[in-house]
This record gives sequence, C-alpha cells and structure tokens, in this order.
Amino acid sequence: MPELRRDPVVGRWVIVAPGRADRPNAFLRLSRDCDDPQSCPFCPGHEAMTPPELLALRENGPPNGPGWSLRVVPNRFPALRTEERMARGGVGLYDRMGGVGAHEVIIETPEHTRALSQQTPGQIEQLLRAARERMLDLARDVRLRSILFCRNTGAASGASLDHPHSQLVALPLVPPELQQELAGARKHFEEKERCIYCDVIAQEARERSRVVLETDGFVALSPFAARGPFELLVLPREHRSIFEQSTPQELRGLSDALRLCLRKLDLALDKPACNFYLHTLPLREAASDWYHWHLEVRPVLALAAGFEWGSGIFVNPTPPEEAAAFLRQTEA
Amino acid sequence: MPELRRDPVVGRWVIVAPGRADRPNAFLRLSRDCDDPQSCPFCPGHEAMTPPELLALRENGPPNGPGWSLRVVPNRFPALRTEERMARGGVGLYDRMGGVGAHEVIIETPEHTRALSQQTPGQIEQLLRAARERMLDLARDVRLRSILFCRNTGAASGASLDHPHSQLVALPLVPPELQQELAGARKHFEEKERCIYCDVIAQEARERSRVVLETDGFVALSPFAARGPFELLVLPREHRSIFEQSTPQELRGLSDALRLCLRKLDLALDKPACNFYLHTLPLREAASDWYHWHLEVRPVLALAAGFEWGSGIFVNPTPPEEAAAFLRQTEA
Repeated sequence: MPELRRDPVVGRWVIVAPGRADRPNAFLRLSRDCDDPQSCPFCPGHEAMTPPELLALRENGPPNGPGWSLRVVPNRFPALRTEERMARGGVGLYDRMGGVGAHEVIIETPEHTRALSQQTPGQIEQLLRAARERMLDLARDVRLRSILFCRNTGAASGASLDHPHSQLVALPLVPPELQQELAGARKHFEEKERCIYCDVIAQEARERSRVVLETDGFVALSPFAARGPFELLVLPREHRSIFEQSTPQELRGLSDALRLCLRKLDLALDKPACNFYLHTLPLREAASDWYHWHLEVRPVLALAAGFEWGSGIFVNPTPPEEAAAFLRQTEA
Repeated sequence: MPELRRDPVVGRWVIVAPGRADRPNAFLRLSRDCDDPQSCPFCPGHEAMTPPELLALRENGPPNGPGWSLRVVPNRFPALRTEERMARGGVGLYDRMGGVGAHEVIIETPEHTRALSQQTPGQIEQLLRAARERMLDLARDVRLRSILFCRNTGAASGASLDHPHSQLVALPLVPPELQQELAGARKHFEEKERCIYCDVIAQEARERSRVVLETDGFVALSPFAARGPFELLVLPREHRSIFEQSTPQELRGLSDALRLCLRKLDLALDKPACNFYLHTLPLREAASDWYHWHLEVRPVLALAAGFEWGSGIFVNPTPPEEAAAFLRQTEA
C-alpha cells in the first residue's frame, strides 16, 4: 500500500511504495539483460500481461487484444493508486497521507524496437494526444492536483523496460519542482507584469546562441543554466499555460520539435539515455498570464554524485552555447 | 574557467565548468574500465600526477613524495577555483558569477583497493580530522560561504576513480539543500524553541523501528521519509551545530558509527555504490540552538528517472522500517 511521507525538516514528500520492489530491475543492475519481445508485456499478443486498457487506438478487434497502434494501461507496479484513501495523519513529528494518485503507462507503438526518435511525426502526435486525453480524464478526480507526463529512454535513464512507453503520474499535491517554477514565475509577473518564459524566449531569440531549432509555433533551446550537457527546453513560442488546451496544430508543432530534438541528440551523442517531462499548470486551474508550459529534455550523460545530492547544485561540463551550436549543425 | 549561472525562474545556481569535460569518465560509461594502480594518480609513487599537496600525514620523507598515510590535493578538474574573481553580473534576464570556490580531494589511504568500509577506525578518524582541518583553513577565505564534504563509492555513485578518496567543495553561497534544512529547522525553533533534529532523535529513540545503531555519542537511523532504500542519517546524539568544532572523542564516535553503517550496507547489499555528504552550518556562523549537523548516507540502488527529476518527489520501494530492521540484524 503506497503512502506519502513528509520529511519533517525540509517538507519534502516521498512516495513509499513497497509494491514497486517486486518489479524487475527495482534495484539497480547496470548491465540489464537485453529485454526480449517474447516476454515483453507491452508487445502485441501479450495484452493479458497488463491490467485492462484505459484507452486504445485500434482499427479493429476487441479491447485488450491485438490490432492497436497505442494503448494506455495502469502501471502494474504503481507508485500511487486511485483506490487509496487520502487519510492524512500525523505520527508524532511526522506527516503522512495515503498514496492517492494514478500511475499509467502509454505504450506508444506495437513495435518493440521502434525508439521514440524513430517514430513518425504522426505517431508522436498520437502519443501527445493520448497523454492529453488521459490528463483531461484524470482531472475529473478532484483529489488529484497535478499530473506529470514523463518518459525514460535507456537503462541509465531509469527505464525498466525497452518497449517504447511513456508514463503519466497523477499526484494529490503540486510537486516541488513545479511549485518552484510557479512561485518564480508568479514573482516575476508581480514585478514586471510579463511571463518570465516569454521573456526568456525573447532574449534567446535575440541572442541566438542557445537556440537549437524552431518549428511551427515551438522553440527548443539549451537553457542558460542547464543542469547537464545537452539539456533542452521546448516551449510554445506564443504564451500558453495549459498543455491540455493545446490545439491539434499545436500538438503537431510540438511533436515536430520533440522529434527533431531527439533525432539530433541521437546523432550528436550516439543514442544517449534520456529523460523528458512536461511541466504545465496544476489541474483545474484557470489559464494564467504568468506561467508557460514546456517540456524539459535531459540526456543522461553524467550521474548525480554526492556533491549534487548534498548541495542541490549541478556541475555541467558543457556550456549550453556549445551544446546548442553542435545540435544546430547536426542534420536530423 | 568555471562560472556559476542562475536559472531565471527557480533561482537554482548551476556550475558550468568546461574544464571538467576533459576528465576521464566525464560522460557516462556504464561499464568502466577497471582502473589500474599502474596509472592511478592517487597511488604512492605517483604524487607528481596530482597538484602539490595541501595537507599530508607522513612519518618521513619530503612533501609530494611517498611515505604518506593520507594526502589532500586540489582536484585536477576543479568545479570551482580560488583563483576566480566573484565578478557578479547580469546578462539580460540572467545572473552569473565567477566560479569562486575550492575543490579538494582527500586521498584516504595509499592502498588502492582499501575501501572505506575496510579501513580501520583510526584511518576513518584520520580522514574526518583531515576534512575538519581543511574546512577550518578554507573558512579563512571570506568569499566562501559553505563547504560540502562528500564521498562517492562505486561507478554508479558518480565516482570517476576507484582509489579511496573523498572530496571537499567550498562554495561562494549556501547551497539549496542546506538552505532548505536551515529554513526548516529555524522555523521549527521559532515555533517550539527546540531543535527539530533533537526532536527527531527523541522520537526515534522511543519508537526504535528506524534506529540502525548507536555508538558513543552517535545514532544512525533510516529516516521516516527516506528518499531511497537503505538511506541513513548519522547524527550526534547531543545537540551540535558545527562539525568543525567536534572534539577528538566526537570524531572517534562518528568514525565508529560511519564505519559500522558502511560495513552493514556492504554485507546487506553486497557492497553497493554509495554517496555520503556532511551538512553543517555555513562557514563562520556562530553555534546555533536550532541546527544540528549530520551525515546523510545514500546507497545507489535505483536511478532517478523522469518522474523524480520532473517532480522532485522520490519513490522509495523499501520502507525505512524494513531497511532498519534488516541492518540491525546484519552483524558488521
């Protein structure tokens, strides 16, 4: 039974999810067995190995059988579950609550070896549409405060299965990484009456040195204070605060930008392990003048070590201007 | 030339240190070449491969030659350097400053394969004394605000060399991880007039379920909101806010506690990769009633993935009560 526990000093919530220790690769093995389509729970024909699907795109055939081009299923080893009760409580100094939430897997393609960077623009657009649809559905549960759409590629990124998939984690709180952005962006707006992300886009468009690419409506740049080599930020060029309100044209622009970024990283860095995640307004908040949704893309090229964990300061050996120049030249 | 850059939204400082890209293993290689004493810059006889020593313990022989039992040298690939100028400045929206600081390596033993957990209590005590001595010396540079003493063990921890060593990184700012603890502890003291860490120690001593071991003056426990399996917190049982003011007896008690923790982890988890770091008051602050220095020990058993990076929330599959019970039983 997952629960959320709060550190009494810094207030950091942690998910204690004992069930997840049963999953393959729960503890780090650096040389993973190459995982095999024969036993892959996400391959067509193995639909019974996952919980029943929440959403699927298929031309024909019944639910939970083959014939699909994309499936969304509950995670078999969920970090959080809708069945939990909030049950907030104190234990002496400590605070806890039930592990209420949802943890879903988007199986992006029936093809076991079709990396996201090798998917067609249409397939990536279909993934983004599915993520949006699930987010809109999950938002109806008023216990949930925000949803993180994220993806791990490659063993060093924390991925436990090779078959192309992304994840949606719905949380009963606004997570600290998003909270910090909301607070910073709100402060900037209070001072300047401008969106700070729009200001960043304007400055980057003038300076050009950190811009990697532009597509219809989107810009990808290597941020001024990138935490690691080749970190990228993908933003809608116009001010938009809620990902779920994206138009079909906007999702097409994002899928083009994301696909190009991933292809450039593959070429520049020989298919690096990589994480990305989406930051957007918490659920059910009204569109805001001060927040701007975006994707953060982070190739895994260095491990966080004692210094990074102990200080919270990252050491980046590659100036973002160099990374951006290199990626601009890389023909994807 | 290293520089510090601040993220305009969340205020997070990052060290951009181009020189560090030259070091071996700057980019992740999951299967590291087993590193060889013949070419190890930290082995006796290779003293010329490091910058001149800042501190050494040796019975005989001249500086920067063999005969030592411990050496402290500047890092050849420093994240920060004393030679930099503060040079704070703005670039449009962005803030930067020179990479002022220090980055030192403590070579703990001449023996290439003598893991810290296999060192004698006297050797670990000598390491802690050396760390304290260097911290007191670095504190004289008033540009420096705090020092992180940290250690990486094993490739998955981010260690780039096998030869037993720790690091000291002196910073021109109070890093966010420490700032958050200071803020939380100060708030608790304002409300209760008690140190929150002393309150934690008292509650854990009553409940026992998360206590791993106690030595003369120290307690090791698996924290209520541990971020990962087998995370440990080692604290002086009595209230102490400044590590550098530890008495010889206290350093002896800490070395016993640390050694036992590491040996238990080695036995329980088959020599896991591991990080630890020391949190103590910023430099030159007066002893405080509300802060309590401590070591955080974090075996590397799971990788941070997109969810953890994007949310700032860790998923821990092993309840700390289970980890503590297991470690209590492990005879080290």
